[in-house]
Amino acid sequence: MRLVVVGADGRMGRMLIRAVAEAEGCTLAGAIEREGSAALGQDAGTLAGLPPLGVNVTDDPLPVFAAAEGVLDFTTPAATTHFAELAAQARIVHVVGTTGLSEADLARLEAAAHHARIVRSGNMSLGVNLVAGLVRKVAAALGTEFDIEIVEMHHRMKVDAPSGTALLLGEAAAEGRGVSLPDVRVSTRDGHTGARRPGDIGFATLRGGTVVGDHSVTFAGPGERITLSHHAEDRAIFARGAVRAALWAFPKRPGLYGMTDVLGL
Amino acid sequence: MRLVVVGADGRMGRMLIRAVAEAEGCTLAGAIEREGSAALGQDAGTLAGLPPLGVNVTDDPLPVFAAAEGVLDFTTPAATTHFAELAAQARIVHVVGTTGLSEADLARLEAAAHHARIVRSGNMSLGVNLVAGLVRKVAAALGTEFDIEIVEMHHRMKVDAPSGTALLLGEAAAEGRGVSLPDVRVSTRDGHTGARRPGDIGFATLRGGTVVGDHSVTFAGPGERITLSHHAEDRAIFARGAVRAALWAFPKRPGLYGMTDVLGL
Amino acid sequence: MRLVVVGADGRMGRMLIRAVAEAEGCTLAGAIEREGSAALGQDAGTLAGLPPLGVNVTDDPLPVFAAAEGVLDFTTPAATTHFAELAAQARIVHVVGTTGLSEADLARLEAAAHHARIVRSGNMSLGVNLVAGLVRKVAAALGTEFDIEIVEMHHRMKVDAPSGTALLLGEAAAEGRGVSLPDVRVSTRDGHTGARRPGDIGFATLRGGTVVGDHSVTFAGPGERITLSHHAEDRAIFARGAVRAALWAFPKRPGLYGMTDVLGL
Amino acid sequence: MRLVVVGADGRMGRMLIRAVAEAEGCTLAGAIEREGSAALGQDAGTLAGLPPLGVNVTDDPLPVFAAAEGVLDFTTPAATTHFAELAAQARIVHVVGTTGLSEADLARLEAAAHHARIVRSGNMSLGVNLVAGLVRKVAAALGTEFDIEIVEMHHRMKVDAPSGTALLLGEAAAEGRGVSLPDVRVSTRDGHTGARRPGDIGFATLRGGTVVGDHSVTFAGPGERITLSHHAEDRAIFARGAVRAALWAFPKRPGLYGMTDVLGL
Repeated sequence: MRLVVVGADGRMGRMLIRAVAEAEGCTLAGAIEREGSAALGQDAGTLAGLPPLGVNVTDDPLPVFAAAEGVLDFTTPAATTHFAELAAQARIVHVVGTTGLSEADLARLEAAAHHARIVRSGNMSLGVNLVAGLVRKVAAALGTEFDIEIVEMHHRMKVDAPSGTALLLGEAAAEGRGVSLPDVRVSTRDGHTGARRPGDIGFATLRGGTVVGDHSVTFAGPGERITLSHHAEDRAIFARGAVRAALWAFPKRPGLYGMTDVLGL
Repeated sequence: MRLVVVGADGRMGRMLIRAVAEAEGCTLAGAIEREGSAALGQDAGTLAGLPPLGVNVTDDPLPVFAAAEGVLDFTTPAATTHFAELAAQARIVHVVGTTGLSEADLARLEAAAHHARIVRSGNMSLGVNLVAGLVRKVAAALGTEFDIEIVEMHHRMKVDAPSGTALLLGEAAAEGRGVSLPDVRVSTRDGHTGARRPGDIGFATLRGGTVVGDHSVTFAGPGERITLSHHAEDRAIFARGAVRAALWAFPKRPGLYGMTDVLGL
Repeated sequence: MRLVVVGADGRMGRMLIRAVAEAEGCTLAGAIEREGSAALGQDAGTLAGLPPLGVNVTDDPLPVFAAAEGVLDFTTPAATTHFAELAAQARIVHVVGTTGLSEADLARLEAAAHHARIVRSGNMSLGVNLVAGLVRKVAAALGTEFDIEIVEMHHRMKVDAPSGTALLLGEAAAEGRGVSLPDVRVSTRDGHTGARRPGDIGFATLRGGTVVGDHSVTFAGPGERITLSHHAEDRAIFARGAVRAALWAFPKRPGLYGMTDVLGL
Repeated sequence: MRLVVVGADGRMGRMLIRAVAEAEGCTLAGAIEREGSAALGQDAGTLAGLPPLGVNVTDDPLPVFAAAEGVLDFTTPAATTHFAELAAQARIVHVVGTTGLSEADLARLEAAAHHARIVRSGNMSLGVNLVAGLVRKVAAALGTEFDIEIVEMHHRMKVDAPSGTALLLGEAAAEGRGVSLPDVRVSTRDGHTGARRPGDIGFATLRGGTVVGDHSVTFAGPGERITLSHHAEDRAIFARGAVRAALWAFPKRPGLYGMTDVLGL
């Protein structure tokens, strides 16, 4: 499968280039960066700490998408909605790991998914998606006698909170309980908060150092606590998951898919 | 339901007396201690920090069992196998939270269960049994690419290792993988151990302070880890679970049951 | 030492009654509740699950303080500032474990401390105060290359955030770094936050179940993390610490003291 | 400083090559592998995923050491004691991160240190050595009312247990208490162990996945627990620490040093 990496000079971009280069049955078909990037014109392999791959970084996605079969995208909401339209035009698979998408952004992805195969997930790892499935089950099994709290920690450069993965886990908990996350989500506590409202789902966000991504969901009941947690050691798990998603979506019909579809969970 | 507490002067015994006194539909029908115990003759309520309950501690179980409908037992393997025979004779429910039972002890419980309703569990809490169910599912979903490690911590007075609950979680993991726990169990690592054998299930035991009971099961794979953990804050959760088990077993046929039966998990 | 417990019918109040009853050299000299409380007139021992102590709960602190040598107070800011004035008039020791005090409340305590011995701490346990000392040292040893994040969890009924203990740990970190906590404190993160500002100290608050009090301080640097954490199993540690503080302060001069003074750390 | 890396084709060896290449004021002066290694003759930079460094891997340490100023060694006890003699002859700095050294091995290092500057540590990271210092202090401050338990987790390929770092932390705890670690060390618990012996220091070892190195030391007392933990995200912290140790030792007199000397803790 011929794959393009957008945001090629970012940390995830380089990781994606390596994952494509290592994956059986995949070749790097292109590498995109924004206008003015210092990486333009460089070999994508060299950029990623590999031997040269014969693919130069460019800021013009249109011809690159036209010659490819899929695009791997961990960029920004603005860039992703733009790439979604280009990918739909080119009829190629679009794997979206971008976080911080608004309702309006999601609506644009859904529109593009009428003609394109899009796989979107707040987290592309096997482990997180498995944990999300467990969270759904436990939330369904336990009543509101058990309070649900979600904590996440990421590196100091992360610009949004809570993480897309924390929200994905919160959605799973809300689904298990048969409620809507926006109705029960509590993302900040500061000052006089009053007692916890039964049924609320709390989020707490830590930032610091070079943390790749830690998430935990606690069910705190009378006299006991259950905690389900995921610890990512290495961003490579997300890149490998994205390649796996692209390969999975290749023979599928247009539509907006998630990682649970890809992993068959 | 008229319930007897054996080992009435131990920490769990007193907890059980309080749980029986608080539970709707239950009354304390007797309280047993070993010959020579300083608690003999005392009121069981007073012993448990409650107002007097009008039940004196005795060392003669036979007449007490005869007048009761169930017995709650968190004692020692030797005492428990003896009580199992008495409970079977008296045709009353026997709830067994005792840990450290040998294969021979279990065989005696199974024999008694032909005529008696016995509920036995290494851990009577809702949360631990729920976690055990998740462990089974995750172990089945992930291959041996993910290594399974179980850690537990209990207070400094605990005399056996690993805890009954840790073994219960290990059994769940082994079942999920379709293997026999004794074949893959590793309970000690010290000195030159060599690399980890694929498929092994490791146990680590911590002891200290007044810890009621912490357990965690980690699935450690390439670049990521999933951890499922349970934290008991208060021994009362086990006592409440034991009362719940007795009430559940009361209308059942003879047999050897577990907490997953009781909780319908 | 003759000690009064205020807020006698609250969870901490009963715990304090038990701690006074158990402590060598202490007797319960009074138990105060607010006007209209159902506990008025009851025996304080009975209220706390003990045999009767011969002390009835009353809503009139003045004569009780006059006949006592110290008062243990884990109530509300409004009640505590009132009790501080009464304790100063009665020239008795005032141990304050109340959280959520404003700057204005603290100013009133300081004023009262000209004539009274007051020990105030966001947390009365040995462990937390020891951890605070370590946090100060580590914050001083490591530069801002290491990001400081503080997480706490408490039961669902707690009404303020972050906990007094979390703030105490944050103060220790800020002192270690030679900065003022209000200048670097970040207590909420939600939405587009931008990258972490170097030198910030982050707080995250979890609420749920019956958690007595968990706190951790993480120093997250390039490629490694140090975490110092404290786990309270049992509210009795705070009550025992409060009694210890009262005994320590008895022979001292008027002043506003902290637990590090009491523990000699 | 001209540095040699031994065990150049191992995971730590490649990490050390990268750390030397990146460190200001350092150059790679040689790269050693054992006879028969597939890496012999290759460029050390290429081996480590870098551009070529102009240094080929060889199996003959003697001439390489003679032309260098220091050697970085995370190999095996047998290799390390051999290299110690060669380094002493060549009068170059020897940084030893090898674990599993016996008393006899240590005696040989001490002998070599009469003529050579050796820095040896079970863990070369800033964080672990800082934590060890805290452990010493806490162990000294708390009596045996607080039980000390040390847990570590490493990847599935690690062949010795407990880790050198866990033992380093245990030594720090024993020093704090004024006892000898061998007298109080408990490394295995399985079956009927009896109650915990006061003053014991317990070790628990987990192995699995690709874990770089997690360590925690818990002080478990009546009703509360303090835990000091270190989490290594990336082996690069050990390699950077080894380079730092070499630079520190360069102007020193012969002797056997530790990382606390290097870090000035």
